[in-house]
Amino acid sequence: MSYEYSAKYIKQLSRAVEQKEDAYLEKEFEDMHAADISAVMEGLSAEDCKYILELLDPNVGADVISDLEEDIRKNFMALFEAGELSKYLDQTDSDDAADILNELPVKMREEVLGSMQNQEKVLYIVDLLHYEEDCAGGLMAKELVKVNINWNVHQCIEEVRRQAKKVDKVYTVYVVDDHDILLGRISMKRLLIADEEDKVADLYEPEIAKVHSYQEDEEVAELMQHYDLEVIPVVNVQGRLIGRITIDDVVDVITEQAEKDQQAMSGLSEDIEERDSLWAMARARLPWLIVGMSGGLLGANFLGGFEDELRLVPAMAFFIPLITATGGNVGIQSSTIVVQSLASGGFQGSVFDRYFRVLIVAILNGLTLALLVYAFNFLFIEHALAVVVSVALFSVIMIASFMGTITPIVLDKFGINPALASGPFITTCNDLIGLGVYFTVAKMLLHS
Amino acid sequence: MSYEYSAKYIKQLSRAVEQKEDAYLEKEFEDMHAADISAVMEGLSAEDCKYILELLDPNVGADVISDLEEDIRKNFMALFEAGELSKYLDQTDSDDAADILNELPVKMREEVLGSMQNQEKVLYIVDLLHYEEDCAGGLMAKELVKVNINWNVHQCIEEVRRQAKKVDKVYTVYVVDDHDILLGRISMKRLLIADEEDKVADLYEPEIAKVHSYQEDEEVAELMQHYDLEVIPVVNVQGRLIGRITIDDVVDVITEQAEKDQQAMSGLSEDIEERDSLWAMARARLPWLIVGMSGGLLGANFLGGFEDELRLVPAMAFFIPLITATGGNVGIQSSTIVVQSLASGGFQGSVFDRYFRVLIVAILNGLTLALLVYAFNFLFIEHALAVVVSVALFSVIMIASFMGTITPIVLDKFGINPALASGPFITTCNDLIGLGVYFTVAKMLLHS
Repeated sequence: MSYEYSAKYIKQLSRAVEQKEDAYLEKEFEDMHAADISAVMEGLSAEDCKYILELLDPNVGADVISDLEEDIRKNFMALFEAGELSKYLDQTDSDDAADILNELPVKMREEVLGSMQNQEKVLYIVDLLHYEEDCAGGLMAKELVKVNINWNVHQCIEEVRRQAKKVDKVYTVYVVDDHDILLGRISMKRLLIADEEDKVADLYEPEIAKVHSYQEDEEVAELMQHYDLEVIPVVNVQGRLIGRITIDDVVDVITEQAEKDQQAMSGLSEDIEERDSLWAMARARLPWLIVGMSGGLLGANFLGGFEDELRLVPAMAFFIPLITATGGNVGIQSSTIVVQSLASGGFQGSVFDRYFRVLIVAILNGLTLALLVYAFNFLFIEHALAVVVSVALFSVIMIASFMGTITPIVLDKFGINPALASGPFITTCNDLIGLGVYFTVAKMLLHS
Repeated sequence: MSYEYSAKYIKQLSRAVEQKEDAYLEKEFEDMHAADISAVMEGLSAEDCKYILELLDPNVGADVISDLEEDIRKNFMALFEAGELSKYLDQTDSDDAADILNELPVKMREEVLGSMQNQEKVLYIVDLLHYEEDCAGGLMAKELVKVNINWNVHQCIEEVRRQAKKVDKVYTVYVVDDHDILLGRISMKRLLIADEEDKVADLYEPEIAKVHSYQEDEEVAELMQHYDLEVIPVVNVQGRLIGRITIDDVVDVITEQAEKDQQAMSGLSEDIEERDSLWAMARARLPWLIVGMSGGLLGANFLGGFEDELRLVPAMAFFIPLITATGGNVGIQSSTIVVQSLASGGFQGSVFDRYFRVLIVAILNGLTLALLVYAFNFLFIEHALAVVVSVALFSVIMIASFMGTITPIVLDKFGINPALASGPFITTCNDLIGLGVYFTVAKMLLHS
């Protein structure tokens, strides 16, 4: 990882801030990319960060603020007056500016907007503040270059020139009609090699992918990934062009989704990072641990009903961990395959086909494990119990495969993240089912 | 998901192929994006796909082949003669063409290269075939637009015009010296708004991010994500510009890595998908199931040493699932936090700080759960056993937190995917440790 800075370097910067060595600090940050300055700042105190930020060009400062991690930025922004912040937001892309403002208390937000100089930006931001964070409207920026279908190339280039300062990265030029309805696009390459007199109407690409402002961020990510796009236009219900979403924001959506899935799979109930407060860390873990604990106590209660059997055949207890662990492993494997299949566009084939395949794989693996365990137990324990253990193991594998397959599908139907199906709730259920199966089989076979 | 096609539609297409209704098929695919045609083909037989492909424009066909899933493409390409394939590869971007050729038997690969018309493309591909799939060289395409530092804007535009056909998406124009050493870049926007007489030397951006051909794909992904890039140039050891990597390929790397992590966490030993063969499915699951089974049998063996104790106090067995499940849950939570912290650039702070935090969180959660369980058990079971269970639970939480934290760090040091630490091997170890702690505590407290 090249974006970590040594503790020594961070300390050195912190000392320089303390002693107000502005010349040294300015030199240090002069050629550094904003994303790297943000990475450095994540090691410094909020006060030190503010001191450094004020030494930077406001343009760079704006990028640094956008690049900071949300939780660090929150602490840091508490130190600013509205007038100070507005200076940076004047320079920030509208999507990032709206995200930053959303992190502020309402009063502060209004004050910052009120003291901004760039009135066009203020209009952009106020519009963006309406959208939920996790929809296309919440991801889009208002800055884009659009041209009228009736123009020629010369007029387009003039427009790009006019907007060049405002729009940081121009990927493509959008083509609209007199009512701002999105008609298509012209690539920069096409514009560059065209004649000045060529008509937009003759050059533009009419059929392009677009999203509606209300579409979910994950849908946008999927669409851009499917069509290999680096930017996608956003339209409102009338088909008017209202913004654009760039791939860098979508990459963040993809990464966050992967992290959320991992957390769902591992029983963390909040978006938690290693550097969060101890209390937040403990709190994010407790809910699922308590669920697991309740499952364990229920299991204890259930086993309590078999006290006499256990006194007679204590060897029955020996295989409890085997049964519960295998059920858990099989369940998680099954659900993960389904979760990935749901994420990558669904299983192609009939419902019957899907369950038939699950059944066959479960029988294959169930038989293999049951026979291996039987072979082992045959040597060490009495025969009746060896049969019980293997029959129970086979049954548990069958049930856990089925549960693991169906749970994510059901969760997905109800709009819940299916990755939860690989998490502790299901493992806990599988433990209980495993115990139930094991002792039921034992009762049936040993009593007969 | 908008890229799934109904079974009915797929059947209709298949029937049209059977009855050679070319007019219908051509009309159906005329305005469809290549990525969508690929999605449709994933539901059809390889023979049907080939029939449809031959109706398409070879340019579109080339994109369709690139977009197909690797395993489907493999079956499909087995139907082609070298001469047929080469027609498509002449039109494919060099990076995709190299990937496709890498999936063919060596003899076929040579034949295809031999019958290609586009000699420049052949040179590109042969060069790319040298690189491992998972390094920057394996991700890059050779198609790019570069200009000499001594040129003016007019010459640049002529060069873009000349290469426009060859390079699909031009994001940026690279600036090199007479020896092809990468010096910087000019954005398309800059070129478009510059005067024809302006010098490249005055316009270009000198400090730009780049990668070396040998860098790992995940490093490339991290770099592009860190700097929000949509394209990055690749240089060789001398600093010569040899290719470029576009964000769409990097998005695939990020998605694949997330899938690999999920599989590592859930005990799947191969990259498996729901539609893979039944045998592949069973095989991918068995190894970790057998590991878990062995752990279960070891546990049974261990418990065998406590047969007399279990006969005396069968209630001891009741809490086995509680102890093992809690150990597993705590271990997975701890390791996932560390895994995500490793992935997002590491923990900022001292080693001592890290473990101190782990310790405090473990004590907080350990005490909470131990007290809850004690309160519950106080009502139902004898006091000595209630104490044993709570002490054991607390100890297991402490140990599992520590193991969960240290395991991914150690795996990462040895270059193994740390996500494995949230997987079944560690869960199995935790089960055994949990049993060991429980019965040791029981022996110590109950015998005294």
